[in-house]
Amino acid sequence: MAGNTFGQIFRLTTFGESHGQAIGGVIDGCPAGIPLDENFIAGEMARRKPGTSAFSTSRKEEDKVQFISGIFNGKTTGTPLAFIILNNDQRSADYDDLKDLYRPSHADITYNLKFGSRDCRGGGRASARETAVRVAAGAIAKLYLKKYKISIHAFTSQIADISLENNLKVDISAIDKDPLRCPDKVVSLKMQKKLIQLQKEGDSAGGIVTCFAANCPAGLGEPVFDKLQAELAKAMMSIPAAKGFEYGEGFASAEMKGSEHNDAIKMKNGKIVFVTNHAGGILGGISNGDDIYFNVAFKPVSSISKNQKTINSKGVEKSITVKGRHDICVVPRAVPVVEAMTALVITDHLLRLKTLK
Amino acid sequence: MAGNTFGQIFRLTTFGESHGQAIGGVIDGCPAGIPLDENFIAGEMARRKPGTSAFSTSRKEEDKVQFISGIFNGKTTGTPLAFIILNNDQRSADYDDLKDLYRPSHADITYNLKFGSRDCRGGGRASARETAVRVAAGAIAKLYLKKYKISIHAFTSQIADISLENNLKVDISAIDKDPLRCPDKVVSLKMQKKLIQLQKEGDSAGGIVTCFAANCPAGLGEPVFDKLQAELAKAMMSIPAAKGFEYGEGFASAEMKGSEHNDAIKMKNGKIVFVTNHAGGILGGISNGDDIYFNVAFKPVSSISKNQKTINSKGVEKSITVKGRHDICVVPRAVPVVEAMTALVITDHLLRLKTLK
Amino acid sequence: MAGNTFGQIFRLTTFGESHGQAIGGVIDGCPAGIPLDENFIAGEMARRKPGTSAFSTSRKEEDKVQFISGIFNGKTTGTPLAFIILNNDQRSADYDDLKDLYRPSHADITYNLKFGSRDCRGGGRASARETAVRVAAGAIAKLYLKKYKISIHAFTSQIADISLENNLKVDISAIDKDPLRCPDKVVSLKMQKKLIQLQKEGDSAGGIVTCFAANCPAGLGEPVFDKLQAELAKAMMSIPAAKGFEYGEGFASAEMKGSEHNDAIKMKNGKIVFVTNHAGGILGGISNGDDIYFNVAFKPVSSISKNQKTINSKGVEKSITVKGRHDICVVPRAVPVVEAMTALVITDHLLRLKTLK
Amino acid sequence: MAGNTFGQIFRLTTFGESHGQAIGGVIDGCPAGIPLDENFIAGEMARRKPGTSAFSTSRKEEDKVQFISGIFNGKTTGTPLAFIILNNDQRSADYDDLKDLYRPSHADITYNLKFGSRDCRGGGRASARETAVRVAAGAIAKLYLKKYKISIHAFTSQIADISLENNLKVDISAIDKDPLRCPDKVVSLKMQKKLIQLQKEGDSAGGIVTCFAANCPAGLGEPVFDKLQAELAKAMMSIPAAKGFEYGEGFASAEMKGSEHNDAIKMKNGKIVFVTNHAGGILGGISNGDDIYFNVAFKPVSSISKNQKTINSKGVEKSITVKGRHDICVVPRAVPVVEAMTALVITDHLLRLKTLK
Repeated sequence: MAGNTFGQIFRLTTFGESHGQAIGGVIDGCPAGIPLDENFIAGEMARRKPGTSAFSTSRKEEDKVQFISGIFNGKTTGTPLAFIILNNDQRSADYDDLKDLYRPSHADITYNLKFGSRDCRGGGRASARETAVRVAAGAIAKLYLKKYKISIHAFTSQIADISLENNLKVDISAIDKDPLRCPDKVVSLKMQKKLIQLQKEGDSAGGIVTCFAANCPAGLGEPVFDKLQAELAKAMMSIPAAKGFEYGEGFASAEMKGSEHNDAIKMKNGKIVFVTNHAGGILGGISNGDDIYFNVAFKPVSSISKNQKTINSKGVEKSITVKGRHDICVVPRAVPVVEAMTALVITDHLLRLKTLK
Repeated sequence: MAGNTFGQIFRLTTFGESHGQAIGGVIDGCPAGIPLDENFIAGEMARRKPGTSAFSTSRKEEDKVQFISGIFNGKTTGTPLAFIILNNDQRSADYDDLKDLYRPSHADITYNLKFGSRDCRGGGRASARETAVRVAAGAIAKLYLKKYKISIHAFTSQIADISLENNLKVDISAIDKDPLRCPDKVVSLKMQKKLIQLQKEGDSAGGIVTCFAANCPAGLGEPVFDKLQAELAKAMMSIPAAKGFEYGEGFASAEMKGSEHNDAIKMKNGKIVFVTNHAGGILGGISNGDDIYFNVAFKPVSSISKNQKTINSKGVEKSITVKGRHDICVVPRAVPVVEAMTALVITDHLLRLKTLK
Repeated sequence: MAGNTFGQIFRLTTFGESHGQAIGGVIDGCPAGIPLDENFIAGEMARRKPGTSAFSTSRKEEDKVQFISGIFNGKTTGTPLAFIILNNDQRSADYDDLKDLYRPSHADITYNLKFGSRDCRGGGRASARETAVRVAAGAIAKLYLKKYKISIHAFTSQIADISLENNLKVDISAIDKDPLRCPDKVVSLKMQKKLIQLQKEGDSAGGIVTCFAANCPAGLGEPVFDKLQAELAKAMMSIPAAKGFEYGEGFASAEMKGSEHNDAIKMKNGKIVFVTNHAGGILGGISNGDDIYFNVAFKPVSSISKNQKTINSKGVEKSITVKGRHDICVVPRAVPVVEAMTALVITDHLLRLKTLK
Repeated sequence: MAGNTFGQIFRLTTFGESHGQAIGGVIDGCPAGIPLDENFIAGEMARRKPGTSAFSTSRKEEDKVQFISGIFNGKTTGTPLAFIILNNDQRSADYDDLKDLYRPSHADITYNLKFGSRDCRGGGRASARETAVRVAAGAIAKLYLKKYKISIHAFTSQIADISLENNLKVDISAIDKDPLRCPDKVVSLKMQKKLIQLQKEGDSAGGIVTCFAANCPAGLGEPVFDKLQAELAKAMMSIPAAKGFEYGEGFASAEMKGSEHNDAIKMKNGKIVFVTNHAGGILGGISNGDDIYFNVAFKPVSSISKNQKTINSKGVEKSITVKGRHDICVVPRAVPVVEAMTALVITDHLLRLKTLK
């Protein structure tokens, strides 16, 4: 039983390989009447697009989202919203040398072991190119969330060993102005220096994305298995290269005392307020109305030009250097993907909440 | 749309409140012909049972799993396997003082905000008592996994600020002999000392559980959304008090270079071997045949006897001290729950893998 | 992948064998705040209960629905509603002679072929006893539908070759007063005479149940696959012994002209009205606000005392006469089961409709 | 929660409106390694294509299936198989007069009531044009079923009041040679005469499709809700214009005695054999290895050129005559659609059966 559908009510099914004709998706369960703001969607796509900085792959893709169905007179109709994104700049020849080799820490070997063969052009289905579809679908979800005034913002909080001092207080308006999507200019410059150095070495970097969802109503999340943090964790860990997820205090909470971690509750102007937000906006798997925030760790990019040991599909040991066109660090381009997956989770749970009465 | 079912093929649906008559579950999709080893199941239940150490709640529960259906002549029949576990030692009166108060960092407030009211006796559905059902179902899954010789072992790797030096090399046979399920005696004694001190202070501790799944075949996991790590992350983050999940190098990978993190591949006696296992046994969302390992962070127990500020359901500010019967740290009892959820994920994906051809 | 769950939002999972300790179910997704009218539920159970007429099995079951979870202060809480119904009067010894024989037109042979073995006591999971759980769950659904003033009524419209002249105009109040649940006394007496004769011959009868759902809002049903009639068809065809389903004009529509079958539309007191209702209240898979009506055909009971040819599980040819305790015709007891399944479908689709905006 | 996905393991999601740019589908869970025989697929599409007889719409569509993903070197890869079929000959202008009118017995009114608006061009999503996608997906399923030697054949058994004498004995090779897909030439000529007459009157006809699935293994179908007949019923009743479903003796079984309806069992050359097949190849919801057969009733086409009464979207009463390009009877073109849906159900259940052990 395959796993290319995400969500229960707002259901996204994706398809497509890195070097096929196109990638795309179908959203079934998209509410009717959402105005389809194509500029907004194009803007979201541009944030993930390759080739916009010195640290990302030089593959050029227009990444225009072409809608096939589900729209009439500029609004969603409630029927399935299908869209494709053409693959224009695939250079499959780049992969001719590699088609028989398993690139270390890539999915080449596991796809072959699982399916018996694989589309070896550019990572095939396992390529991070599929995340363009997530961003397109996330843009639709964000358009829906607008009527609830829910906002979602992610940013680069760490690359290699360089990190923001405080993830919880950042200038959101600075994020997209920075080439690494790091909201602190000084920190970003250090990161850029580090990346330039790694680029020279033929090596790569990992990092951390932090994400905030503000203005979510209380009540999102479905215990005991589909708790909001569980669904977010699944969403984030399904992103290529993600290695860890934590929300609220996360791993740091392991070292805290209950008296330090518990959030006192009080009233303010007739509204329930949490004095602190160690919880990360979720209690018992259900949003409490406070900001939801979490971190996602990404491993260093697996494609490096340094020499590595591997085998080919016949089980012969080989050396490999991965050339092609690759990011040095996925984190800046992962930022909009993290946001998109968050938007999908929250939209799905807003709709799930409606079935309660 | 509620969320009390876990799994796609091996589907567990759970029910029950902490202080109701019973808790229980139904497994639909349990393969036919599994010998139901009741001693093994009882042994698993005993590992999670309250009241077995000085650090856990003094609530006494026999936690006998009573099967209602799906078994004939000692074997599963392929029809739904239903079971209940009686609640014998509920003392709802303990909660009379609390029924109108929202305990800080508990789900009391979010259940009320979501459902309009809640079963306030002992945490109701949000109580960690529901994890007994997960352990029972996990025991069935483990019985199924025996025929694949897959083994799953979790242990306490950190409590408060005291941790094992190396999570990856532990003596599995030592785990269950230790009252905290920490495989290193010296470290465990330090942890115990810390817990005794916190107990005196009326405070609580968090910690980390590490889990290994050995001998899993390559091919488990369904990209692009139901990747094995995504499913494990969801499973773990659905456990009460879990705040973070990481697999392989996890958050540490953010600081590594590609050349440090990539696992070289070679042949050994005609079999594919990874020289290192930074990946944690999963590539591109699919198991690669190597050991799968991950960490789960747990927050400090929210029920503390120190005085805290909160409100009641009418929005009046109040002071609260949570008495009742509570663990000081959930980690030792979370160990079998982490194993159970892992067993559910792996069983489900073994069965999903069968639909590929 | 097993199939013991029905519904998408209002999800019923059932379990239990005819001669096990109990049968039961779990409803996940039951909205919070429904007052649990136990008398109403008991009344629904009594309508399906065996042993209430000369034509049904003499097995005596109290069929009391015991709720285990999901209820607090007499109302549903939004958490899973679990319940069991004890099997009190199983006489497994009656089946000792049969345990190795495949009763013709029963599921004995297919369960063995599918699962490798079966619970042979009283039909095991394949027994119509499982429909008691459907009626219990349907009663909960009906309690929910009360707030929408939706009413569901089924009745016996045919037994053997004796049928009502007009299924569409019946006296609903007469249904439950009749031992066969036929709303026309004269027709019912003919049916009873026929059944007495078949009983003497050691034979059995089939028949037809007609069902009406009134006051359903327009908009129920989810094209293109989960159309309302498709969901009703699945629900009805999942009832033991059902052989056919038709809605509106059904099979008779095959012989009609478009000009005869089309329903003209007009306005009446500011509301949309259909001049006729050949459609059966559904257009394009979506309810149109008019009465929904359909027929379900049931085969004659397979358990007959006449001598039949069969084989045993070793493939040896044998003679068989099925004694035990059996209905001569399932139709009167199928009436509340048809209603229950209708209530489940409509409740599920009312909740699905809420996710549209 | 929308309903545009069919199947559990072999999952088809469809999209597209009659007069949009294209219609299409995604199959997730398609096993890897199926050789994609494009000629076979084109042949199946040609069987449903409009404009091939005097009785079908004159809309001209090439109906070429363009695959976007999931195929490499001519075989399925196990990743999602996406495809589109262009809409070349839409004439939306034909519908300009109708865009504000509700065509009687069409889905115009219910789509508006449900979604608040609709794509009014050519029936939009409710158009039978969507069944082209079902046929394409069914062709893939048939390619998979080839390795099990399962064959599926449907045919026209009734149009208006003219029907085959015996649905169970037909010459399969004659079906596709006949313009109405009726395997008896004499009967077909009567049907054609009837249709010509109705065409003159500006009226339309209904009818019945009969379908056989031969060589299915025993064990398909998942009680108690996903019984094979329940799944087939849902599949068939989701086809536009379907009004009834029956399998085996169907509605006729209501009049039969148990002794007439039961199928005796015997051994023949070491294999289990049913002496008769009143059951239609399914017992207790599980295939028994015998031929599966069933009937599907279709209503007369709703688009007729006779004058009818209706209202417009403002609630004003109007007269309407539906011109456009329409079939007089859907039955001949429904034949491949019935086969396709049958292939989807059987493929899905073959794959579900694999998860049993």
